[in-house]
Amino acid sequence: MALVVQKYGGSSVADASRIKRVAQRIVATKKAGNDVVVIVSAMGDTTDELLDLAQQVSPLPPGRELDMLLTSGERISMALLAMAIANLGHEARSFTGSQAGVITDSSHGRARIIDVTPGRIREALDGGQIAIVAGFQGVSQDTKDITTLGRGGSDTTAVALAAALSADVCEIYTDVDGIFTADPRIVPAARQIPKISYEEMMEMAACGAKILHLRCVEYARRFGLPIHVRSSFSTKEGTWVVFAPDSEGTEMEQPIISGVAHDRSEAKITVVGVPDKVGEAATIFKTLADAEVNIDMIVQNVSAATTGRTDISFTLPTTDGSTALTALKRIQERIGFESLLFDDQIGKVSLIGAGMRSHPGVTATFFAALADAGVNIEMISTSEIRISVIVGQDEVDTAVTAAHRAFDLDSDQVEAVIYGGTGR
Amino acid sequence: MALVVQKYGGSSVADASRIKRVAQRIVATKKAGNDVVVIVSAMGDTTDELLDLAQQVSPLPPGRELDMLLTSGERISMALLAMAIANLGHEARSFTGSQAGVITDSSHGRARIIDVTPGRIREALDGGQIAIVAGFQGVSQDTKDITTLGRGGSDTTAVALAAALSADVCEIYTDVDGIFTADPRIVPAARQIPKISYEEMMEMAACGAKILHLRCVEYARRFGLPIHVRSSFSTKEGTWVVFAPDSEGTEMEQPIISGVAHDRSEAKITVVGVPDKVGEAATIFKTLADAEVNIDMIVQNVSAATTGRTDISFTLPTTDGSTALTALKRIQERIGFESLLFDDQIGKVSLIGAGMRSHPGVTATFFAALADAGVNIEMISTSEIRISVIVGQDEVDTAVTAAHRAFDLDSDQVEAVIYGGTGR
Repeated sequence: MALVVQKYGGSSVADASRIKRVAQRIVATKKAGNDVVVIVSAMGDTTDELLDLAQQVSPLPPGRELDMLLTSGERISMALLAMAIANLGHEARSFTGSQAGVITDSSHGRARIIDVTPGRIREALDGGQIAIVAGFQGVSQDTKDITTLGRGGSDTTAVALAAALSADVCEIYTDVDGIFTADPRIVPAARQIPKISYEEMMEMAACGAKILHLRCVEYARRFGLPIHVRSSFSTKEGTWVVFAPDSEGTEMEQPIISGVAHDRSEAKITVVGVPDKVGEAATIFKTLADAEVNIDMIVQNVSAATTGRTDISFTLPTTDGSTALTALKRIQERIGFESLLFDDQIGKVSLIGAGMRSHPGVTATFFAALADAGVNIEMISTSEIRISVIVGQDEVDTAVTAAHRAFDLDSDQVEAVIYGGTGR
Repeated sequence: MALVVQKYGGSSVADASRIKRVAQRIVATKKAGNDVVVIVSAMGDTTDELLDLAQQVSPLPPGRELDMLLTSGERISMALLAMAIANLGHEARSFTGSQAGVITDSSHGRARIIDVTPGRIREALDGGQIAIVAGFQGVSQDTKDITTLGRGGSDTTAVALAAALSADVCEIYTDVDGIFTADPRIVPAARQIPKISYEEMMEMAACGAKILHLRCVEYARRFGLPIHVRSSFSTKEGTWVVFAPDSEGTEMEQPIISGVAHDRSEAKITVVGVPDKVGEAATIFKTLADAEVNIDMIVQNVSAATTGRTDISFTLPTTDGSTALTALKRIQERIGFESLLFDDQIGKVSLIGAGMRSHPGVTATFFAALADAGVNIEMISTSEIRISVIVGQDEVDTAVTAAHRAFDLDSDQVEAVIYGGTGR
């Protein structure tokens, strides 16, 4: 008998009929002889509707109260799911994050899990019950107030509970069949990846692959918990996220490149004409950090000896754009830079693959493929298992397609048909 | 400085603009130098919408999960109300029933409060904050599961918390100006009652007056807590529910009759031709009690010596009708009664007044007034401070109007205008 943790997102429980279908899948897992713990998100657009209500009442609602409000969303979906399971003749009990023992810090809206004490969940399992747990939420250790975990919160709840319960697997249900070598909407020949390492998955998540969030993969890696990403609309095997095979492993040889990720959510700011003095860049990035702006890539041009000035470009989430520009304008006089440029028409294309460690020439192949496709590279950033480039936003599709083909990732069989009906 | 507990019902917080208006009233109370605790119901039709969702998922949802679902309603309204108050520059904190220390038994859907431990509320007040508490809900002492209190639950939460905090007053906000001598929709000349005793209010509530629930008045009487029923749409004084003035009291003389209540929610069942033997009636009512049917009035005709049989009639909530009929049919053969009659076209009209204790002749005046108005009386029941009659449902308005006039309750000034706009 295995202990299976399953997580269903908002689209999987968007209405009564979907909730009933999910209930059937859960009951099937239970009937197969497993203990089952289910983490569930709020139904469909509930969270957005609640946020809209909050906006009608207050332009800047206190974080504590916003968390209190938003957590009602999972409360609704989890109770309905427990009812649907009961209706199939199996006993289910729903638990809030607090009841499930998800203990967090006090950062409302983006709380971090600091402990999981799933005593009541364990009790429910021991009693033969299916436990349904609200994702995305917890309770503050210090203030006992209700908190939310922020983006990717439900996945993180699932992985954290699975780790605390020593589950055999954490299944993340979504509306696609798993992780693909590229977004099939852009590359119809993209293939589903049967197995990927935590490291690669983390790079994929950080580079715009939206199926799993970085923090949930990080958490799973720390506890060595296998994640199985699969579709709630089929029973096909999805993608397993696991440790990379060690060097003596008998697993099949790793591909050089696992996948091509892209991200259109970033913008680029260029600080023009920064005096080429020691410490100016430090002041700029200290200012941005103080304004809580997340910086991704940074490029500093070689300073022009004739002018004594240089340009510094960096990328950041487009939504942080105005915050960053405001903060920088405030130090313009002190630093003495000339002007600020803002470009939100950029896109990031990333090649990810643990195999590139031992295969020189990946960068050359990548850049050649982009050049052949007529794509201009604006910025470059690399890690041990990733190469990212910034290109024009309207060249993202071309770049992804070219890279995918250049590394022989194209499948013989076009899978795009699968995606026709999911409304993803 | 007083401690004021205020309770706002679902219609007072039905949308964002009403929530903002309620927030202003709360802040005004706080600014006047009071500590304020607010109990709030779910917004408008939220509870019905959630029940509808539950029905879509399961025809008979488990009580535990239904309570988990329904309690999300107050969670939404209380968080929004706290945000609206924060937006006015005052600090407010929302608390679930569990967080507010509302401890109940484990009867899901109709839990009883067995203890109130408002430590966190007290802390919030000590910190100068306004406490917003979810009505209608608590947490089971034994199972730690979330419970709901059933009908009138939010009023009961308000009174129970007010008692536990030794509040100076519990203000119940509603969409009318207070308790009236009769329903102003039926009797335009009905007057608002400035002050009424717990006893009379309990009889009013039991006889169909819907503004306050019986259990909340009972609770307030036990703790000697004054209730102030008033409109959330005006600042007028409403109706105070307090102890009756003692016999030496210097208060103005009590009116003989405080008000006329009516109730159209009951039906009448007649068990025809019951053999006139000892214990038959006991068997009938034991059967109904086992089926959890609530009986109100009972009448047994004098047995006809010639037939050796008698008829037994009783009233009950119309919604319990089919349960009762089914239970009785099952014992028809054993008892040997002839048939069952069911009549849901009845209404109950009740005269309530502590003064009738010391004024003989009230019954005679009441019955004469009904006779003059051509109203036929089907059943009669009395208590020390109440006379109730069952009449045809289409004669309820006539009977209420006649009784109101007969006891000089009519006001000189017709207040019906007030009710035009409330949409009550």
